[in-house]
Amino acid sequence: MLGLWLESGRIGLRRDLGRPEPGPGEALLRLRLAGVCSTDLELVRGYYPFRGILGHEFVADVVSSPDDPAWEGRRVVGEINAACSECRSSCRQGPTRHCPQRTVLGIVNRDGCFAEYLTLPIANLLEVPESLEDQAAVFTEPLAAALQITQQVQIQPDSRVLVIGAGRLGQLIARVLALTGCRLCVSVRHAGQRERLERLGIECLQSDEIAAASMDVVIDAAGSPCGLDDALKAVRPCGAVVLKSTYASRHSIDFSRVVVDEVRLIGSRCGPFAPALRLMESARIDPRDLIQDRVSMDSAPSALERARQPGYLKALIAPG
Amino acid sequence: MLGLWLESGRIGLRRDLGRPEPGPGEALLRLRLAGVCSTDLELVRGYYPFRGILGHEFVADVVSSPDDPAWEGRRVVGEINAACSECRSSCRQGPTRHCPQRTVLGIVNRDGCFAEYLTLPIANLLEVPESLEDQAAVFTEPLAAALQITQQVQIQPDSRVLVIGAGRLGQLIARVLALTGCRLCVSVRHAGQRERLERLGIECLQSDEIAAASMDVVIDAAGSPCGLDDALKAVRPCGAVVLKSTYASRHSIDFSRVVVDEVRLIGSRCGPFAPALRLMESARIDPRDLIQDRVSMDSAPSALERARQPGYLKALIAPG
Repeated sequence: MLGLWLESGRIGLRRDLGRPEPGPGEALLRLRLAGVCSTDLELVRGYYPFRGILGHEFVADVVSSPDDPAWEGRRVVGEINAACSECRSSCRQGPTRHCPQRTVLGIVNRDGCFAEYLTLPIANLLEVPESLEDQAAVFTEPLAAALQITQQVQIQPDSRVLVIGAGRLGQLIARVLALTGCRLCVSVRHAGQRERLERLGIECLQSDEIAAASMDVVIDAAGSPCGLDDALKAVRPCGAVVLKSTYASRHSIDFSRVVVDEVRLIGSRCGPFAPALRLMESARIDPRDLIQDRVSMDSAPSALERARQPGYLKALIAPG
Repeated sequence: MLGLWLESGRIGLRRDLGRPEPGPGEALLRLRLAGVCSTDLELVRGYYPFRGILGHEFVADVVSSPDDPAWEGRRVVGEINAACSECRSSCRQGPTRHCPQRTVLGIVNRDGCFAEYLTLPIANLLEVPESLEDQAAVFTEPLAAALQITQQVQIQPDSRVLVIGAGRLGQLIARVLALTGCRLCVSVRHAGQRERLERLGIECLQSDEIAAASMDVVIDAAGSPCGLDDALKAVRPCGAVVLKSTYASRHSIDFSRVVVDEVRLIGSRCGPFAPALRLMESARIDPRDLIQDRVSMDSAPSALERARQPGYLKALIAPG
């Protein structure tokens, strides 16, 4: 089958990939549409030593599901963390997405979705509501990641909240937080990003317009280390900074400020899929204006290149 | 009057200091006993550019209190953050100890307690229960700082909790956390520190004995940047690290670990005085075994020198 292969920091199309076999409890999925995420670009840069088929944002059809044939023919999205379901440290106690033995679709020891076929545990699948078109459903994974913020931090309707960065993820975060009614503003660098937010009535500003110690909650989705410094400047004493960027290396910050002002720093990764589907089905969030390219798998390598450009938002990849 | 003066990184006894005048809403206090804290030593090192009388841990008698004479003659301890009580950003909304205009006893723009007399706002004072002797009451401020941890983070009775560092503050933190019934262990480097904890039935270990990703909550009270790295290694995914050290400079950590494992980092500073007094009055916490020296003001400079030695615990300073 055709797929986008990453090895030693180089990506390339391969037509000789074997169609994957579903393991116990797994389903075989045929890709309908995939999305390109900053983590994919970081993996190409070597953020994590992954070798295999890239990609983790998708909507697909279930081709076969030997252990539960009722899933066959359904259109699905899927949680990307595949847990061992047996370990004591996570799977029997805590959130299985933190299982230390987990594989992660297109990120850790599991081929991803930039290919004609992929496999995932049945337990990871969620059926896509009929009314939701593929071009929205493909945003389920990053929208869930945005919703993880409100899983972890209580955003009150009168909270002053700043999102730093208005790229792929920052745009979705802003849409999620706007639903709380909070006093939201977003630090934006690119005209196209600003335009999309202002159309939704979301206040935008430039990073030098942010007053020091003025925000109850700051989300760093800048995608670069300077976002964290800006976040620490902007947050008020006893406020919270949510870390939502992919940090590729060690970074130094002023921990004295963190202690003296009793700031909370909260790492945030994957989130809940079901509310993401509900919010899109009910049209409370519509991510489709973020799509800038929709290409076939043949053009995926060049789409990944374009996705690196400053200000670029979403590229989608269709199988054929 | 006699006092310990810090200027340009040098400390020295001065006998020519003027007795302070209480301002509006303030009381004049006569020192009974003061304690030496790591923050004092960091200030001498230049952690913050303070010039004046050092010291912020004390028990004292109220000599005069013009705006509320009922306080005169009482034995007191005092909250060290003196707020402006008027600013919109903190004093009218949030915790006044974060007032951006605040002075801090012996730390920021306010002479401290290593002197015969000091002043503080009446609003900062708490009367010491009669049964509590000076040598315990002088620990109120650091014990309150230890209690701030349980103000900020819920420690459950079955939480696995690690305290890194068993110095002045780490000892008090361990005593506070032991009261929750949690599965507590303390990373200890010095025999005298270990002995004091084991006497209280608190499990001690060495830093290389800590299993990775095994702790629900880790408190970094190491007093050195490597404590933070150890804390990040020890905390489980979705766990919390409480930052309780005085960090003198920028420090780099692996923020990728923070995000991927969704760790919370929580800065923690001053805490509530009233519960500290209650816990000592009821003998649920007795800090007096931490005292290693009790010297008069004349010997304070050499006591501060001794307090720098690895493994050293508490030095107390009496006015005469």
